[in-house]
Amino acid sequence: MQIRIYYEDTDAGGVVYHTNYIKYCERARSQMFFDDGKKLGENNCHFVVKKIDAEFFKPAYLGDLIEVKTEILELKGASVDVLHTINRGEDKLFCARILIVFVNNFKPARLPEEIKEFFNKYLKK
Amino acid sequence: MQIRIYYEDTDAGGVVYHTNYIKYCERARSQMFFDDGKKLGENNCHFVVKKIDAEFFKPAYLGDLIEVKTEILELKGASVDVLHTINRGEDKLFCARILIVFVNNFKPARLPEEIKEFFNKYLKK
Amino acid sequence: MQIRIYYEDTDAGGVVYHTNYIKYCERARSQMFFDDGKKLGENNCHFVVKKIDAEFFKPAYLGDLIEVKTEILELKGASVDVLHTINRGEDKLFCARILIVFVNNFKPARLPEEIKEFFNKYLKK
Amino acid sequence: MQIRIYYEDTDAGGVVYHTNYIKYCERARSQMFFDDGKKLGENNCHFVVKKIDAEFFKPAYLGDLIEVKTEILELKGASVDVLHTINRGEDKLFCARILIVFVNNFKPARLPEEIKEFFNKYLKK
Repeated sequence: MQIRIYYEDTDAGGVVYHTNYIKYCERARSQMFFDDGKKLGENNCHFVVKKIDAEFFKPAYLGDLIEVKTEILELKGASVDVLHTINRGEDKLFCARILIVFVNNFKPARLPEEIKEFFNKYLKK
Repeated sequence: MQIRIYYEDTDAGGVVYHTNYIKYCERARSQMFFDDGKKLGENNCHFVVKKIDAEFFKPAYLGDLIEVKTEILELKGASVDVLHTINRGEDKLFCARILIVFVNNFKPARLPEEIKEFFNKYLKK
Repeated sequence: MQIRIYYEDTDAGGVVYHTNYIKYCERARSQMFFDDGKKLGENNCHFVVKKIDAEFFKPAYLGDLIEVKTEILELKGASVDVLHTINRGEDKLFCARILIVFVNNFKPARLPEEIKEFFNKYLKK
Repeated sequence: MQIRIYYEDTDAGGVVYHTNYIKYCERARSQMFFDDGKKLGENNCHFVVKKIDAEFFKPAYLGDLIEVKTEILELKGASVDVLHTINRGEDKLFCARILIVFVNNFKPARLPEEIKEFFNKYLKK
């Protein structure tokens, strides 16, 4: 998934504000669902972020076109361990391991088979 | 209501990103309700913004402490005409006239008496 | 320019937070420059927003694909009067007339010929 | 440092959007400097975030008043290991260990003595 950097993404340091890289990861996860024709938040079920383990390598600048790559590290009973990498061309800018938990009315719930199959396609080998 | 400018508020131009001034106006409106012990979005009722008429005079910078002043210009059947002014000390930075509409399940609804009385206290003379 | 609505764009009202529509307008203006191979903020010159006159018709929801249309209403000596319209399919969601001023080191400056020609292509007839 | 939750902070899930907790940590770090009469980004020096290790326990809601506590875990040559905890009353909502690096023109640089002394006051025992 490609993302363009606009003024709204930057801060007075002249680079992308640090939490925005984590926003882009969420965009990428959502877009995976949209591309598959799925809706988010249906039947009071959705994912919440439980853990983030992120590292920043190089900054992105206004006008940059960056790419978010999403891979699944592990599928558990009620959660998914996701690895996001953000690159600008050959440059690695950011990576994050994000644990998301499937919830039904804000309580952790077993991942439906359909969603497991969906994520299985993105499983990192 | 006083607001401090943090990195998240600024952009690569080194000043506060323009739409953030309009966010601060919403913060000020919400804070008026919180200060009065009210909750927002109860009974499926809340306000939506219908019109914004804004003018920008001077920019705010990282670390600035600015002040948002809120006055009511007119109370109508289902809507409220609000005037926000943002200053930094003596400097006028921004002003906006914002028309907000009271909605019940996303349909315009008559302003409850309690809310009319509440806004009456802020009516500009 | 097409924009997808992600979680970050929405608020607890379940719809897109109102100032975000104005952000999308800025994205669309920036993208016009990027598409033309131009950079933003070069030689200490850039545009600042001076006035916004906006109206909200219908809300956008999580997952929506919306379209921002940008037209130039008038080119003045140092400023440009821009009309943005946001639609979701046939539905008109939002429109805004935004006056942007060309500045050199934060002081209004004459629009360079190159930029005038660029905007001329988008002049509303 | 106390932070009020406004509409802008929430998303369509009805709770605070996950990356915003990390924004609040940055607000708290900046506010420490402002409270001490310091400016940010002077002499081309500032801090950049290098690593984030965050865990989410409970969500915050519209209107909540939350508190961000900041402690220094370790002071290194060019970096600072910071622990942020966000609570709402007795409830622990979020914690993050954030490694920030001092940079001069975007290159890591030794922490000035003045800044070391400043952070020393917040060292966790």
